[in-house]
Amino acid sequence: MLYTEIPTLRPVTPLLDGIDHPQQLRLLEQSQLEKLADELRQYILYAAGQSGGHFGANLGVVELSVALHYCFNTPKDRLVWDVGHQAYPHKALTGRREELTTIRSKDGLAAFPAREESVFDTFGVGHSSTAISAGLGMSLARRYQKDPCEVVAIIGDGAMTAGMAFEAMNDAVAHNADLMIVLNDNDMSISCSTGGFAKHLAAIWERGESVNITEDGEAFVQSHPEWTYNSRLHESATDAADNLFKAIGFDYFGPFDGHDVNQLVHVFNALKKRKGPRLIHIYTVKGKGFAPAESDQIKYHAISKLNAKASTNKVPKYSDVFGQWLCDEAKQDERLLAITPAMCEGSGMVQFAKEFPERFFDVAIAEQHAVTLAAGMACEGLKPVVAIYSTFLQRGYDQLIHDVALQNLDVTFGIDRAGLVGEDGPTHAGAYDYAFMRTVPNIVIMAPKDENECRQMLHTAYLHKGPAAVRYPRGAGLGVDIQEKMTALEIGKAEIVAKFNEQYDEYISVLAFGSRVQAAAEAAQAFAQKNEMAVRVVNMRFVKPLDEQMISAIADNTALFVTVEEHAIMGGAGSAVNEYLAKAGIVKPILNLGLEDNFMNQATHEQMLQQAGLDEKGIEASIQQALLRITNAVSS
Amino acid sequence: MLYTEIPTLRPVTPLLDGIDHPQQLRLLEQSQLEKLADELRQYILYAAGQSGGHFGANLGVVELSVALHYCFNTPKDRLVWDVGHQAYPHKALTGRREELTTIRSKDGLAAFPAREESVFDTFGVGHSSTAISAGLGMSLARRYQKDPCEVVAIIGDGAMTAGMAFEAMNDAVAHNADLMIVLNDNDMSISCSTGGFAKHLAAIWERGESVNITEDGEAFVQSHPEWTYNSRLHESATDAADNLFKAIGFDYFGPFDGHDVNQLVHVFNALKKRKGPRLIHIYTVKGKGFAPAESDQIKYHAISKLNAKASTNKVPKYSDVFGQWLCDEAKQDERLLAITPAMCEGSGMVQFAKEFPERFFDVAIAEQHAVTLAAGMACEGLKPVVAIYSTFLQRGYDQLIHDVALQNLDVTFGIDRAGLVGEDGPTHAGAYDYAFMRTVPNIVIMAPKDENECRQMLHTAYLHKGPAAVRYPRGAGLGVDIQEKMTALEIGKAEIVAKFNEQYDEYISVLAFGSRVQAAAEAAQAFAQKNEMAVRVVNMRFVKPLDEQMISAIADNTALFVTVEEHAIMGGAGSAVNEYLAKAGIVKPILNLGLEDNFMNQATHEQMLQQAGLDEKGIEASIQQALLRITNAVSS
Repeated sequence: MLYTEIPTLRPVTPLLDGIDHPQQLRLLEQSQLEKLADELRQYILYAAGQSGGHFGANLGVVELSVALHYCFNTPKDRLVWDVGHQAYPHKALTGRREELTTIRSKDGLAAFPAREESVFDTFGVGHSSTAISAGLGMSLARRYQKDPCEVVAIIGDGAMTAGMAFEAMNDAVAHNADLMIVLNDNDMSISCSTGGFAKHLAAIWERGESVNITEDGEAFVQSHPEWTYNSRLHESATDAADNLFKAIGFDYFGPFDGHDVNQLVHVFNALKKRKGPRLIHIYTVKGKGFAPAESDQIKYHAISKLNAKASTNKVPKYSDVFGQWLCDEAKQDERLLAITPAMCEGSGMVQFAKEFPERFFDVAIAEQHAVTLAAGMACEGLKPVVAIYSTFLQRGYDQLIHDVALQNLDVTFGIDRAGLVGEDGPTHAGAYDYAFMRTVPNIVIMAPKDENECRQMLHTAYLHKGPAAVRYPRGAGLGVDIQEKMTALEIGKAEIVAKFNEQYDEYISVLAFGSRVQAAAEAAQAFAQKNEMAVRVVNMRFVKPLDEQMISAIADNTALFVTVEEHAIMGGAGSAVNEYLAKAGIVKPILNLGLEDNFMNQATHEQMLQQAGLDEKGIEASIQQALLRITNAVSS
Repeated sequence: MLYTEIPTLRPVTPLLDGIDHPQQLRLLEQSQLEKLADELRQYILYAAGQSGGHFGANLGVVELSVALHYCFNTPKDRLVWDVGHQAYPHKALTGRREELTTIRSKDGLAAFPAREESVFDTFGVGHSSTAISAGLGMSLARRYQKDPCEVVAIIGDGAMTAGMAFEAMNDAVAHNADLMIVLNDNDMSISCSTGGFAKHLAAIWERGESVNITEDGEAFVQSHPEWTYNSRLHESATDAADNLFKAIGFDYFGPFDGHDVNQLVHVFNALKKRKGPRLIHIYTVKGKGFAPAESDQIKYHAISKLNAKASTNKVPKYSDVFGQWLCDEAKQDERLLAITPAMCEGSGMVQFAKEFPERFFDVAIAEQHAVTLAAGMACEGLKPVVAIYSTFLQRGYDQLIHDVALQNLDVTFGIDRAGLVGEDGPTHAGAYDYAFMRTVPNIVIMAPKDENECRQMLHTAYLHKGPAAVRYPRGAGLGVDIQEKMTALEIGKAEIVAKFNEQYDEYISVLAFGSRVQAAAEAAQAFAQKNEMAVRVVNMRFVKPLDEQMISAIADNTALFVTVEEHAIMGGAGSAVNEYLAKAGIVKPILNLGLEDNFMNQATHEQMLQQAGLDEKGIEASIQQALLRITNAVSS
């Protein structure tokens, strides 16, 4: 069925309702699977409408999920879903059907497979391209234990461009591992897939490589031509006769129609008996079965809840601020080039890509390459800007150190989704970037208090001759006016943004970073109303270099330093302040506020901040408590 | 010529002596190149004998280096050497011939290409597999600038297994970039190459894929069969008809004999006129022209100086301690599996690989995969140990966070070459691991004071149910007795190792980490002899979790805390101590000793420690100075 609307009432799904464990699915007749898949698709439409979240990818794997659980003995056999934003059908078939409407909300199901949630979730995911490595680990472990099971890694074509997928395939062949890869090819990552690999897959389609497979797992060309894909028009690769997977040493089968559940069952049943590394190439449509999603796959990668109030918020997102700045700076300076690892839309670069196509580089999911590509461009005197989420910069860390910072190359990093990210949960938190960046020499690190400062900081980073990063949070700014004229900040200069109760001699000095400046200022004001003590709030702006002069200047009349940041306390910006105080011989009490040393599960951003004690109330309470301790220490 | 000895006297090299700039090389007749290559090989033998250092790879690229500088208009055309341990001939041909004997020593030439050293060194390297990304960045930059030049990335077959090389090839095709890759195939990384990719290259050899190339760059099969490689016996890949490079969209040429300088000149001259992404596959012999190196390529990857005293040092290296522990633990526990990303020898795993071949996994140069493979194995209840250099763990950082720590999986990390590494210089320094690891929840991090403690800590990490890392330095231990019996340490427990001048009330409390414990103890003793003040030295053992109880217990009579570590001060172990003091409300002066915020150039390890002020004398002087400041502050 092709649906055109997201149902608001729970659809009637009698077959699906009978499946609380895949064992029950495996008792169905094969002839019932199409009906089940249809029910499951309807249910996913309904559930995603209730919860919001990832969408297109889930509709694309309905038949695949049914066929996998029908053919494999899960959970004994291991299904490893790559990225995992396509795991809704899998979750629905493995005892979590009714909870699916709670996905991505506090105390609800996780956005991605998670080992602590279900024994069917063999590997926790969120970042792409880990499934082959993890699946290979499982397969080799079971071989060593002499207790083999089937291991199936399901990975999209977009995720295949990331180097670690290639590393894992190379290694699987080295061990002649019993591993099945299902390549779920929809010609998309979140954006459109790009590069030689995408062209290669297109060439395979075009030539209709598929061989059919007999029941005993032997492959030869015969019958069922309708199962294969050979009609898709696409720019072909240089030499259509070469197959990358076969070249690396995999047995290759496909491409098959990934929405033909009967065919999938045939293929899986036949090929699960084979040994060695096998790749099954299936073709699916992202958003399959829902007309609007089929026709706009990027927009329907994820959706909002149906009952979410239509946003009347005109405040731009930080990613929009980045995108606008990028266009404006590019107009002024022809040396600017922009790079994204497959996050054109998420990073706010659609307009830039349109206006400056020859200066826009979407390198596919390839964070390591993205950073070193920028380094190479900088060597030729250009000024590359890398737009990357904090959590994904973890993938390009060595390149940041070794290729950019060590050579002191002029690369600007726009680091999005820094701090807590809400519904995507711990896999996507950008909680470590201050720590892993500031330990590296030569890098300037900034964090803006609002969207206007974000723009000015990006300009500052861009003008700085050397590596510089601006890290900003997910979502909307504060709604302040954005100055179109760009003015560079002085590197390493903080600003005092608020003072309260100045009639008192002793100060609490709140040193706040980035997204926590406003909450810190509000907390300081509330605190000041209740206490006979002066308070000043400093917008630190720079994590590196710190404004040491400012800290020294205010130290004398400071009774307590407080640092506030949306980042792990360990190694974070507050830690940088501690280091300076030690170095300068300033011996004062200090309170470091930030994220405690644990991974936080998903909730709304506000809920998470509250839980972490980083909202206004939490900050105020912590300061109050610290003051009490100091006072007690003095009086005792 | 095949040489059998390393010359101790500078060989006579009249042709080579005339080349101070490659422009002079390009004035030679092509018929003189063989002679030049022979002289260059002799000179490399001599120079490497004087300086020590990388060896086999340099002998393998003598003809290649001559041909590249002969055919390309360097430095305007860009040669990008991957890894760079094969850059000696390149350095000798580009004005650094006589300085080559100083390579790897303080103030001498860098071990690798370095941009600040020469305009011919287009990109600083040291870690593998960056050349295609960097070269692509240069090529795209020059295209955008409408000032194109030839860009040649020279990369070994070993480095090709790292995912970022694949990411870069994928992207080069996306842009149809004018980029030439020379694949220098010697069937080796530092160890033997492994995996599907190596098999694929072997299959290409076997079928003798090469086509010959006419002067105008068009390729067709004709003449010169002696130029191609088609005789090498090797296990062939599954399907010899597929070519991975062609599949991804590169024009492929080869394999050619990389020691036939005339052929190389022909090939480069013909193919530099072509456009688009091209790969030239050449076959070379690591150690070529030096008989002992040709027959033992792993041993001759690098050599010691000829005049170095034969080491009478029986003290085991930390990597040996690791290797012995690995074997001993494996004998006791069948669940232990060991993983290395192509560093079997360097990480001390040769014996383990021999004794436990089915439990040894060399995954090729593939750090991302190595970490996630371990995570997958841990999911099946096994206990993987990942042996990795600190500097290379930077490549697996996201996997450490996302695949291991977040899922709290039971993976043990043996982190070698932590701290300063001496002659290899800044690219190989392991100066950031405390910072980038300790900010991540769930990880236990230890650092041993000596080789016995290293063994016990590895055992402790192994028994700990969750992610745990032991980081130890390059080189030999202190020469202490190693207890064969393994005893787990209590997690998070430090030990006081020395006390001096206990008759005084006030203490300086020196909290020392890992490799700096002994120097700190010696410094403390020297300090105590000159000052009327008590000193205690704590071997902290754990960077995470810190022994907070110990710190609190000694705080009362501590006048000054001192932290000492062989790691960047920013975000390091001392920083963790600062955070705890702040949290506990302990307001005391603190001195953080460690590496300052800059990249240190190569020297001996001792010279670097001295320069950083982290040897005994430096530590003592810093404590003395800090004490003076405190005393002045009190008295003023």
